[in-house]
Amino acid sequence: MKMFRKLSTLDETKQVIQQNFRPKPLGVEETPLLEAYNRVLAENVTAILDIPPFGRSTVDGYAVRAEDTFGAEENKPVRLKICGMANAGKLPKMSVAHGEAAEIVTGAPIPDGADAAVMIEYTMRKDDVIYVYSAVAKDENVMKAGADIKKGEVILTSGQLLGSREVGLLAALGIARTKVYSTPRVAVLSTGAEIIEPGRKLPPGKIYDINAYSLSTAVRESGGKPVYLGVFPDEKAVLQRALKQALASADIVTTSGGVSVGPKDVMPQTLNLLGKPGVIVCGVAIKPGKPTTVALIDGKMVFSLPGHPTSALLAFHLLARPIIKSMAGMQLEKAPEVRALASMRMFPAKGRRTFIMVKLKRDKSQRLVAEPVSTGLSGAITTLARANGFVEIAENQQFIDVSEEVIVQLLKD
Amino acid sequence: MKMFRKLSTLDETKQVIQQNFRPKPLGVEETPLLEAYNRVLAENVTAILDIPPFGRSTVDGYAVRAEDTFGAEENKPVRLKICGMANAGKLPKMSVAHGEAAEIVTGAPIPDGADAAVMIEYTMRKDDVIYVYSAVAKDENVMKAGADIKKGEVILTSGQLLGSREVGLLAALGIARTKVYSTPRVAVLSTGAEIIEPGRKLPPGKIYDINAYSLSTAVRESGGKPVYLGVFPDEKAVLQRALKQALASADIVTTSGGVSVGPKDVMPQTLNLLGKPGVIVCGVAIKPGKPTTVALIDGKMVFSLPGHPTSALLAFHLLARPIIKSMAGMQLEKAPEVRALASMRMFPAKGRRTFIMVKLKRDKSQRLVAEPVSTGLSGAITTLARANGFVEIAENQQFIDVSEEVIVQLLKD
Repeated sequence: MKMFRKLSTLDETKQVIQQNFRPKPLGVEETPLLEAYNRVLAENVTAILDIPPFGRSTVDGYAVRAEDTFGAEENKPVRLKICGMANAGKLPKMSVAHGEAAEIVTGAPIPDGADAAVMIEYTMRKDDVIYVYSAVAKDENVMKAGADIKKGEVILTSGQLLGSREVGLLAALGIARTKVYSTPRVAVLSTGAEIIEPGRKLPPGKIYDINAYSLSTAVRESGGKPVYLGVFPDEKAVLQRALKQALASADIVTTSGGVSVGPKDVMPQTLNLLGKPGVIVCGVAIKPGKPTTVALIDGKMVFSLPGHPTSALLAFHLLARPIIKSMAGMQLEKAPEVRALASMRMFPAKGRRTFIMVKLKRDKSQRLVAEPVSTGLSGAITTLARANGFVEIAENQQFIDVSEEVIVQLLKD
Repeated sequence: MKMFRKLSTLDETKQVIQQNFRPKPLGVEETPLLEAYNRVLAENVTAILDIPPFGRSTVDGYAVRAEDTFGAEENKPVRLKICGMANAGKLPKMSVAHGEAAEIVTGAPIPDGADAAVMIEYTMRKDDVIYVYSAVAKDENVMKAGADIKKGEVILTSGQLLGSREVGLLAALGIARTKVYSTPRVAVLSTGAEIIEPGRKLPPGKIYDINAYSLSTAVRESGGKPVYLGVFPDEKAVLQRALKQALASADIVTTSGGVSVGPKDVMPQTLNLLGKPGVIVCGVAIKPGKPTTVALIDGKMVFSLPGHPTSALLAFHLLARPIIKSMAGMQLEKAPEVRALASMRMFPAKGRRTFIMVKLKRDKSQRLVAEPVSTGLSGAITTLARANGFVEIAENQQFIDVSEEVIVQLLKD
């Protein structure tokens, strides 16, 4: 009888990867601000000017000296003489003396002398005089220079993901192009004599390739750019050429299929021919995902994932995704999770970290319940597609009991 | 003294929009599966074949009749005669009779006659005979035809967002191109004499445009495609031309600035000149975001948002985002929220639905605390940028007390 191969535990696997490979961003490029959405900032951004650059009125009305309005009330207005008009977009030429007011619109610079603005609603005008019916305090209705951002302040730091708010901050400072980390290119190829590409007629005995498509999309979900290479038969010479091409055209390589222990499993041997150190993990004690092989070929990571679609996506999620995210410059955030009650007893596979795909439901008492997805086949794509998340069972745990509280790691990004 | 304009409440505003405009997807287009990430499926997908299309071995080993292996044990192997080889990707020619076994690899079709597979690890081979050391049950190590997806089953429905798992399902069925909803184009323009585009030198009295950039990015976050039109002075004739261009080039229009009550506020008047019914909401009783104007111009929605960056983004979030998402075919999901304790007393603006931007922190007892962002200025971009979310205070609520539990709606997508 054949010997079982010694598998690495999930923790050992992560440790071996960490010892051999330090993922870091590959480079920095510039992008126009309008294209910066979802990119990762590659520099600390320091404000080179005050925002706003000058004191601005936040209302339409009159720029005044606040003390001139003290005591003004609905029945006892204060009378001020209009000394000019402060328009938006120009530095005002006049200055406001005691007893004076300047017409002002929202966003216009507060003229010299003035230190507050009165809303037009609280005034009445007669020729070149206004009556103010409500007092304002110093700085009222004024956004002072630097009130939003102070010159010299670090407003964004390297590694931040750029969304609407961060893009707004960059625009405020007049930055039209920004430095972002290059997106790692991840080659995706499938192996197997039985696999053909979708879109073609299905010959007898064949099945459509799932993994290259689900993994390419998972690469995008992880902040990478997929380089789709297609389907290859698992013959040594063909695979060797395909892997060479993959390593040449991408920063990381993922394959699926051809990693079991059978007579046709040429992937590990082929990987070892391609560069040093070669295969660093050959088989991981997880379920599903056992036949996962990890290699490092002259500085590039190769994740050889199982052929089964659910196994391939789970192993990708556990091992490849954090590497891709780190190389994209993204911070590794804890996956979102919820607590739920196990709908039934769940058993781990002997000696393996076990991941049970579950669907979340509400029971009669509106409590959240985690129900294992019925198919349970790692060969099925529907197992994963029907799940909302998974429950992890430790290697040494006996089982999870019915109604026990479990943590469900959510699959949604 | 001027009269205050009658504002619409937030609920009235939503109701008026709903009465006037039913957002729906604009059209359907085809996309290659590798580009389908984050698009919205525009059809129900029914399986046109069983997945897998035939019974497959899930192991490397031997295809057998299960009953032939009954009683096999480590010390009492069963002897079977090899009748051929089942390769992956081809229909096997042989059939397996009683007392026979066919070599088989993972993924190969189970030959006629056989109903299970024995893992190679539990066998020993001698010439054309194998010894089986462990019994298998019927269907063991076999994935039966249709076990994953049954022909005729609806596997995905219109409106689903396409991620790695959904793309995997489509690939499994051989679908290389899929129907998705067209992405709504959203015109974004800024108005104001004081505004200039980032990337240029800042003249005295001017500020850089923030809103066109933050809103363009918010459009992407909402599933739309921004059509950036730039900055326009708020002069009636210029604005009218710009809005005409915006309405012609996009499905929805957003503007910011030029909607207050001042002498230069020409936006509402201009909108009413452009088509019917024109302005449907003029001012919303929210804080920030009061000077928000909503118009419907010959079937297209126009959201005229305030000039203040935080106000503009919040009003966009409350009113425009749901419309864009619906037009993109996306389901409106409740924004993610967490419960936290108010770090201080929070007051609403009189008669207005008030949104307090807060940062989430942990107190000494590790309880989650919502702390108002210190700047508090709706004119500041940093107010929103420094917040994790916001707390909503109802129009008729007196205040939220310190340490009261509040719901924080998270800003992150």
